[in-house]
Amino acid sequence: MTQISTKPPSGTRDFLPNDMQLRQSVFQIIKDIYRKNGFLEMETPSFENIETLTGKYGEEGDKLIFKIMKRGEKEKSGEADFALRYDLTVPLMRFYARHQSALPKVFKRFQIGPVWRADRPGRGRFREFYQCDVDILGSNQLLSEYEVISTLAEVLDRLGLEEYCFKINSRALLFAWLEACGIPEELKPKLLISFDKMDKIGLDGVLQEIGQYQLAKEQSEALNQVLASDDRAASMREFIQSYPDGQAEIEQIDQLLSMFEGSQINFQFDPLLARGLDYYTGIIFEIETPLMKGSIGSGGRADNLSGLFLKQAVPLFGGSLGIERILLVLEEQGKTFSEDHDKYYVTLWDQDSLPDSLNLLKKLRAQGKSAEIDLTGQKLKQQLKLASELGYRYCLIQGPDEKANNQVTIKDMKQGTQELINTSNL
Amino acid sequence: MTQISTKPPSGTRDFLPNDMQLRQSVFQIIKDIYRKNGFLEMETPSFENIETLTGKYGEEGDKLIFKIMKRGEKEKSGEADFALRYDLTVPLMRFYARHQSALPKVFKRFQIGPVWRADRPGRGRFREFYQCDVDILGSNQLLSEYEVISTLAEVLDRLGLEEYCFKINSRALLFAWLEACGIPEELKPKLLISFDKMDKIGLDGVLQEIGQYQLAKEQSEALNQVLASDDRAASMREFIQSYPDGQAEIEQIDQLLSMFEGSQINFQFDPLLARGLDYYTGIIFEIETPLMKGSIGSGGRADNLSGLFLKQAVPLFGGSLGIERILLVLEEQGKTFSEDHDKYYVTLWDQDSLPDSLNLLKKLRAQGKSAEIDLTGQKLKQQLKLASELGYRYCLIQGPDEKANNQVTIKDMKQGTQELINTSNL
Repeated sequence: MTQISTKPPSGTRDFLPNDMQLRQSVFQIIKDIYRKNGFLEMETPSFENIETLTGKYGEEGDKLIFKIMKRGEKEKSGEADFALRYDLTVPLMRFYARHQSALPKVFKRFQIGPVWRADRPGRGRFREFYQCDVDILGSNQLLSEYEVISTLAEVLDRLGLEEYCFKINSRALLFAWLEACGIPEELKPKLLISFDKMDKIGLDGVLQEIGQYQLAKEQSEALNQVLASDDRAASMREFIQSYPDGQAEIEQIDQLLSMFEGSQINFQFDPLLARGLDYYTGIIFEIETPLMKGSIGSGGRADNLSGLFLKQAVPLFGGSLGIERILLVLEEQGKTFSEDHDKYYVTLWDQDSLPDSLNLLKKLRAQGKSAEIDLTGQKLKQQLKLASELGYRYCLIQGPDEKANNQVTIKDMKQGTQELINTSNL
Repeated sequence: MTQISTKPPSGTRDFLPNDMQLRQSVFQIIKDIYRKNGFLEMETPSFENIETLTGKYGEEGDKLIFKIMKRGEKEKSGEADFALRYDLTVPLMRFYARHQSALPKVFKRFQIGPVWRADRPGRGRFREFYQCDVDILGSNQLLSEYEVISTLAEVLDRLGLEEYCFKINSRALLFAWLEACGIPEELKPKLLISFDKMDKIGLDGVLQEIGQYQLAKEQSEALNQVLASDDRAASMREFIQSYPDGQAEIEQIDQLLSMFEGSQINFQFDPLLARGLDYYTGIIFEIETPLMKGSIGSGGRADNLSGLFLKQAVPLFGGSLGIERILLVLEEQGKTFSEDHDKYYVTLWDQDSLPDSLNLLKKLRAQGKSAEIDLTGQKLKQQLKLASELGYRYCLIQGPDEKANNQVTIKDMKQGTQELINTSNL
């Protein structure tokens, strides 16, 4: 047989038991908190009809969609009919359009699962990675923003990521501000993309970038009241005061923040935060931590998204944790969340002792204990070594002497002690 | 915007919250038992390099593999470079070959996840479905058979599928028997495929099928001692006695069954059970239930499988539950496994009462309670109706009177009673 490469496809990963332990406990924590706060779990298929996905992620996004070939005779056409999901949001909108009548009026949902993007693989960038989204559909109440944000914060607290900060802004505020500065409609999205880079390229970089649009002097001066300010949040508040549309957005942000009074969550109103994707319509946020560049979570209000598959508009506020990035941080910190149950390893003295050893195993398991029996067939010494390496707390040993007296030796691998007890007392 | 179909791709499913509740609790039960019995969780990517999968599932299987198109410029070639996993076994063998040195000598592993097959969709047959495999690699001890089978039985017991039966046989026994009957090598697999259909087509059907091979009279007579017997298990035991190779296999089966003495598990030695796939080398089993046609689980020893990606042979015994079929049975029985936590719904009297109601919510959540706040903005009556529909046990109501006295009404939606308490006593 020819030897085939055993590498997983470029950009994907094998998870060994140690990796899985951290991943699964983190996913469990997330699920428990999502559920506790009233979000209902749902699932869409891993792939969608190709027309469900194409055209939804912009030209660049479209190129990153993994397409599945037609099968049988049609394979020869070289065409695709299905595509792996690129995110959990577009499938959600299809799902919601299809099942709306069977779902609660206000639908608090969550979904955790892999998505696939044909990105160039790199450190911390994968072609198969998990997303864990919470969304509230059908409510225009600001409490939706509170629910999503407080739930994400609860997860981060539970994971011990103490230094995170929620950067908050409003897309509607951004557009009201640009309108007030006299910026023409078609330039607005372009300017926002530049402003969003302020953290990366600084004021000079931003001004250079927007230089290409040849803004009028009064437009530039108006923008600069915020852009060039040392305290942009304060300057935005001051500037927007005289513009009711923008002022209403500021008041919304303040009202939302007031809901968090008494909590320990860090918030920062960042009037230049724009978020890359352009489907947001209201409040937007990003979660940052000094432990890592870039964001570890984000979300926003996207009240027009339902238009993808429905004629009626359905209000939506959603958020997502950058769970693969968070896992990297937790891994670097050496965090573990597994409850350390004491595990039992039943050794095998020899093949004749199998029935008795098996009974010990059954007895432990009947008590709900996590117990294993030796499968190596090696000598006792090797069995004990293996059990210790695998993290078993107790080893049970029953040689001829113990057996004759209906006893068993229990070796505590952590303390290095051992005890002889009657099997009936096990 | 053109209206696109909101149907999931043919053969795949959307899971609504109610579906997910059953699925997730069942998967949780399986994981807990797998883990408790010492199986370690691992994960391979959803897709593999195409050459990892092709040629591993026979000609028919190959046709059912979903292939992923090359991307960018290479998309025009109409070629595929990746393929969605078809089962969890071949990826396991690749994984094991790659990571063997980092894994325990005896590797007890489990994996739960979707696999994809381009089958023609039908009732209970899906193109995306979950598998949940347990395997023990690196041990030739019969205890491995015990561990896998007892673990699967523990899951079925916990799920309340009381009437299941393990049908047991050995591929090595089958081959020893055919050898003893003087069947030539090349006919053996063909005969086994016919014998395996005994339950479906009966003795006459089987004899008719094997008629095409024009067996010699003494061959047919030898086979018929078992085939035509009213008690095939007994006849096989009698026939094989004088053939040491076959007798050793019978003794192995008996030794395995003796390990289960005292358990309630139903076993049935079925000397014609062959299992379709031909990679098995030793003991094989299928799990049946009168609740449903076909098997709800299966497995066996496949000591040569490692040869797919490794030069050395690694003993392997594995099993799998037909979890989608089991879920169908549980669904029909109306089973639920969710612990029924009492959930709280905080109503909103009006927008002014938001801060106080929010405090009630925070208080409940700080106590670890599962609590939600109204997001509909509807009248109280509608809120109560909704809460009841969604299965909330308690509704909290705080109108002006209650607020003035720092009190809150707690309505028990199940009992139909209500109680007025001080908010400080919540």
